[in-house]
Amino acid sequence: MDNLTIALDAMSGDFGPRVTVPAAVHALNRYPNLTLFLVGEPTEIVPLLPKKISYHIESQTVNSLKSDHRKNSSETDIPSNKVRLIITPSTSVISNNIKPSQAVRHSQGSSMRIALELVKDKRAEACISAGNTGALMGLSKLLLHAIKGIDRPALVASLPTLNHKNMIVLDLGANAECNSDMLVQFATMGSILSNSLYGIKNPRVALLNIGIEESKGLDKIRSAAMILNANSINYIGYLEGNELLSGKTDVLVCDGFVGNVTLKTVEGLMRIFMSPFTLSNQKHSFFTKLTNFWLQKKISKNFGYLDPERYNGACLLGLQSIVIKSHGGANQKLLFSAIEQAILAIKQNIPDRIAASLSSILTNSENQLNER
Amino acid sequence: MDNLTIALDAMSGDFGPRVTVPAAVHALNRYPNLTLFLVGEPTEIVPLLPKKISYHIESQTVNSLKSDHRKNSSETDIPSNKVRLIITPSTSVISNNIKPSQAVRHSQGSSMRIALELVKDKRAEACISAGNTGALMGLSKLLLHAIKGIDRPALVASLPTLNHKNMIVLDLGANAECNSDMLVQFATMGSILSNSLYGIKNPRVALLNIGIEESKGLDKIRSAAMILNANSINYIGYLEGNELLSGKTDVLVCDGFVGNVTLKTVEGLMRIFMSPFTLSNQKHSFFTKLTNFWLQKKISKNFGYLDPERYNGACLLGLQSIVIKSHGGANQKLLFSAIEQAILAIKQNIPDRIAASLSSILTNSENQLNER
Repeated sequence: MDNLTIALDAMSGDFGPRVTVPAAVHALNRYPNLTLFLVGEPTEIVPLLPKKISYHIESQTVNSLKSDHRKNSSETDIPSNKVRLIITPSTSVISNNIKPSQAVRHSQGSSMRIALELVKDKRAEACISAGNTGALMGLSKLLLHAIKGIDRPALVASLPTLNHKNMIVLDLGANAECNSDMLVQFATMGSILSNSLYGIKNPRVALLNIGIEESKGLDKIRSAAMILNANSINYIGYLEGNELLSGKTDVLVCDGFVGNVTLKTVEGLMRIFMSPFTLSNQKHSFFTKLTNFWLQKKISKNFGYLDPERYNGACLLGLQSIVIKSHGGANQKLLFSAIEQAILAIKQNIPDRIAASLSSILTNSENQLNER
Repeated sequence: MDNLTIALDAMSGDFGPRVTVPAAVHALNRYPNLTLFLVGEPTEIVPLLPKKISYHIESQTVNSLKSDHRKNSSETDIPSNKVRLIITPSTSVISNNIKPSQAVRHSQGSSMRIALELVKDKRAEACISAGNTGALMGLSKLLLHAIKGIDRPALVASLPTLNHKNMIVLDLGANAECNSDMLVQFATMGSILSNSLYGIKNPRVALLNIGIEESKGLDKIRSAAMILNANSINYIGYLEGNELLSGKTDVLVCDGFVGNVTLKTVEGLMRIFMSPFTLSNQKHSFFTKLTNFWLQKKISKNFGYLDPERYNGACLLGLQSIVIKSHGGANQKLLFSAIEQAILAIKQNIPDRIAASLSSILTNSENQLNER
């Protein structure tokens, strides 16, 4: 079994180390070949670790650590082979309420940037953060670079569909504004990903739109449709919101604003149906309460597979390395699921597959152009 | 009881007269003070009418009608007082697969245009069409004009929320692209409508966005937020997709593209939960099938009030007259619901109330500017 190494931004998300640390420990127990870098404030991380775990705190230049926080760790700065948990100190956290450009400018020493630098320096194979999406996008592009042929990476996730298959959806929020070229690039990456992850030979690709007729929607969508119709992608046309989970397409492409609103709308509605509190808040007899409890158990059993929140971790696709964005509000279980997403992406070698396929597509297009 | 007169584009929608005619008849039976203009091809409409109904076919200049289609109607062109169903002949139907600009250019004699002209000529107080949204928008603006202070009318509907209240949402698809001024106008109209329809004194207004922090989203949304923060609207900030039905706001504002995708996403998901076929398609024992049937009855009973498809008929708000857009795929029941929406809008005198409130807001703003 190959070793896996992942850097986790331990300070990110709504709950910071309270969620990231136990999720990391769980992942280490579950995957014996996994090594994790927990990037954050050691004084916040160490007290949350189980007593018997071996860890190593890397030396840091900005803050010196009090020695009592190292009592369980190895005494040198070189972790022993057994130590699979390395705490890499950071000195700041990128806030959610900050513009991406500002975040990037003031990112030195932040947990997000250091986690990405671990990937840049080839010390880790993937980075996970539940922090500011725009900042993660900006810093990832700056430090890890986009694949040749991709202007802007996109946030991508698999959504479950009614026929118990998976649909790749992008962009889910990395690029609030997109042009037609970006939509075409998303379609291409989505098609390659659907093939890599699910073995679908010629994945169907659709554009999310407000009508199925050619004339409908925004200029950028109509232009993207024209380009997709002319290239080698298996483009099947427009898909409307009401067909979202129908399974009519393998890849669904939209701009990051619409994708984000749509995904969150599905999540919110699923929560209404799945939550035991939706019905129980009302004044009911004991019997009705019991029936409602049973009802929501049944709903969860029958429709739970459609809940996107069960599958945390969107991939920032189009980078030369693997970056996973976790939900800001993810709990321990969901953050663990994001770590598993990263493991899958490493095993599948997603960035290299995208780069190779794109390069062959680009070469083909160039050859076709030259032949004309 | 005041008389109500409505013009219905009988040829529009996926099913045309097969749905519009029975819905019209049902409405005439239900509302004794209602007079309906059914605009369409008499040869398609008349055979669908019940034998005993009195109707009148208006004379037309383009097609002459065969006399056997008039046997039940009054023989003159002036309908008697008893006749509450008037068939106004049209010679064409605007297709769904046509750009709005093209549709407007070739609209002469179309059922949609004639229905709107009946309102323009003050023969009807409201127009209903299930046809091409873009064409309806373009023709309405051309024939009925926007209220002073409104650049572009918006499609608006009430969505039910978790707390059993109503939330006004606009734009739902009339303007795929919007600027910040339009979003502010939508917010103003939505606020007035929420007050008129539901008596809410100072309706809360939110902008649909991909984050709640000020820096999030698109430029046009951030600009609209700044303007709304400075004016007299009770603007409460951004709302994300996962809070859509939470009831946290009385009015939700977005561009027509996002609004349309979001509404349709909710509709699609509701249909999955409500449909008796979602579960029954699978191979199950008789007992499981029975339980599933009962389960979906229960879901429908408990969550059905959240289904936007139960409330057909979006209003084209911002015009000097009432125009209702029905779902293209509406069945008879839903088209009847659109007729009821039109009746409500007439009774509430919505366009005049919007115009009056807007005029006072505009005057106040001008006075404030002059005082500076």
